[in-house]
Amino acid sequence: MRGEREVFMRAHLGVLLGALTCAAALPAHAQTTRPPLVLQEDGSFFAGGAKTQVLHTGTNPDGSPAPSGTAFIGHAYVQYRIPAERNAIKVPLVLMHGGRHSGATYETTPDGREGWANYFVRRGFATYVVDAPGAGRSGFNGEAINKARVEAKPEIAPSIGIATAEAAWANFRFGAKYPETYPGTQFPVSTLDAYYPQWVPSVGGTAAIAQWAPGLISVLDRLGPSILMTHSASGGPGWQTALQRPDKVRAVVAIEPGNCTVADADLPKFKSIAVLVVFGDYTEGSTWADRVVACRAFVQKLSAAGGTAKFLLLPEAGLKGNSHMMMMDKNSDDVAGLVNEWLIAAVK
Amino acid sequence: MRGEREVFMRAHLGVLLGALTCAAALPAHAQTTRPPLVLQEDGSFFAGGAKTQVLHTGTNPDGSPAPSGTAFIGHAYVQYRIPAERNAIKVPLVLMHGGRHSGATYETTPDGREGWANYFVRRGFATYVVDAPGAGRSGFNGEAINKARVEAKPEIAPSIGIATAEAAWANFRFGAKYPETYPGTQFPVSTLDAYYPQWVPSVGGTAAIAQWAPGLISVLDRLGPSILMTHSASGGPGWQTALQRPDKVRAVVAIEPGNCTVADADLPKFKSIAVLVVFGDYTEGSTWADRVVACRAFVQKLSAAGGTAKFLLLPEAGLKGNSHMMMMDKNSDDVAGLVNEWLIAAVK
Repeated sequence: MRGEREVFMRAHLGVLLGALTCAAALPAHAQTTRPPLVLQEDGSFFAGGAKTQVLHTGTNPDGSPAPSGTAFIGHAYVQYRIPAERNAIKVPLVLMHGGRHSGATYETTPDGREGWANYFVRRGFATYVVDAPGAGRSGFNGEAINKARVEAKPEIAPSIGIATAEAAWANFRFGAKYPETYPGTQFPVSTLDAYYPQWVPSVGGTAAIAQWAPGLISVLDRLGPSILMTHSASGGPGWQTALQRPDKVRAVVAIEPGNCTVADADLPKFKSIAVLVVFGDYTEGSTWADRVVACRAFVQKLSAAGGTAKFLLLPEAGLKGNSHMMMMDKNSDDVAGLVNEWLIAAVK
Repeated sequence: MRGEREVFMRAHLGVLLGALTCAAALPAHAQTTRPPLVLQEDGSFFAGGAKTQVLHTGTNPDGSPAPSGTAFIGHAYVQYRIPAERNAIKVPLVLMHGGRHSGATYETTPDGREGWANYFVRRGFATYVVDAPGAGRSGFNGEAINKARVEAKPEIAPSIGIATAEAAWANFRFGAKYPETYPGTQFPVSTLDAYYPQWVPSVGGTAAIAQWAPGLISVLDRLGPSILMTHSASGGPGWQTALQRPDKVRAVVAIEPGNCTVADADLPKFKSIAVLVVFGDYTEGSTWADRVVACRAFVQKLSAAGGTAKFLLLPEAGLKGNSHMMMMDKNSDDVAGLVNEWLIAAVK
């Protein structure tokens, strides 16, 4: 082993020392003094979905309809970063975004800091960031849009859910009313123009989310037992995934889930699944108030049944000012720190 | 400096040695013996685009139209990996995918090997993988689809270009005719089902590509002087970008560009831009035959005018069997090796 280590050191010491002396001609985002990320693997794959016959595939440059054929629909794009040194929790951490977002949610924050994907890599987790079926690099099924045009049936065109600053504002709790901000908000509102482009359209509106649990299940069927982090609209699909694959979900970290709707009869399935539900600040009187109540009750039921479950309202834990997009908030590392601490204690 | 290095080594040696001994509970893709990727930075940003008022933003759960508001449209998602040790070429390498694809083009190949993004990181390039405006994590403008439905005007719904196996087959030169494969093809045809999910729909068909040059220009305006790699449909936008920002493009590597259409009057703008055009095998008699002729002539004109330009037909360089998707072909490292060699010689 010593021999191998020596070969390894000889091969990589230059690389590491180079990091200290490298003269850079790169933009500001590259001019940091962070220690390097040392990744054993960095890559991507697609999970789930199926080949499907598509009749309406678009229009040729001459205006004629393109021929029917075999497309691939319903899959999830998954990007992984596996650190060279992993922590004691040997199962992957799968991170799923919310509605009208993509996996970019967990990458660089709007104000240019490292996001949660890298935060957890640096703490030794193998992280897998998912683009939900229908979102981002997973693509979407556009056939109904073509059909609406070709067959002159406008009513069958799906709704394209387009996020707007006005609609997001109070719902994401940047402030009580657009464009006013809460005085103590942790959301980096001075860099909102770097956040807005994260939004991707939702094809089929809320119906599109029906594909998310099958997408997550495909990911877990490929990875095996994992920790699942959900956000907002992926909260419900996360619970469904846990119920359908209780042997493949070691823990669920639900960041402001859209619901905590699990039938009492299903609670025993969470016996070996640790659950953490996190909400931020300003929830009282917001669109999230009822969910805070329902999720706290859900966690209490899980605990009462002997499960490992925690409800974390950030202001109660001393973190003030957090928005719905807490993985981008200025204190995002502090929030991630609480999640990390809980994971270390709860996941064996 | 020696002191700093010692601190650095003490902080990171454990991480590196850990890579040799780490007991893994991860799937096969994580079980490799490659040396780790050592990244000084790993993150993403969005370039270009603008806030815009959108009238038709989709349908509420109760079926009523969602209110108008401010969305963000036309931007490009950019994901970067900056190695700790960079090579002598101090400018970034920007990689742009082709039509109906996303930046996943340059990630893990369908048969599970490292893609070109990592290949070039391992050779010391700061790489920036772009999702074109309208594709993948860049999202698209869905307003016209909503308008077609709400105002019952099906004719204004954009064409959604959906890639099919049958249409891609001969065009990407997997074989002469679907589903037959060329006997010597380098494309990993046994893992086609891991390739098909890479396809993303193109909203607006070919018209969508009008946003690509502005997208690339925004990326370069943020990064400064760079090397630009294009593929297929991004070939034309790549030349346009070079013509509009000759001071910010050090080199263009055009992988099977959709065209090599540059007016003679514009050739002097390429004086300080090195150009490499690469085509694979089986182009004779294919949809690419005319482009091979046109691109060879373009390169000859650039050379005659004193520019640094090379036309690389892979079979002429001894590499046989390459498809249009050569960054995924089984010999993708050999192709990248030729590109890397050329870059080292051509870019000062």
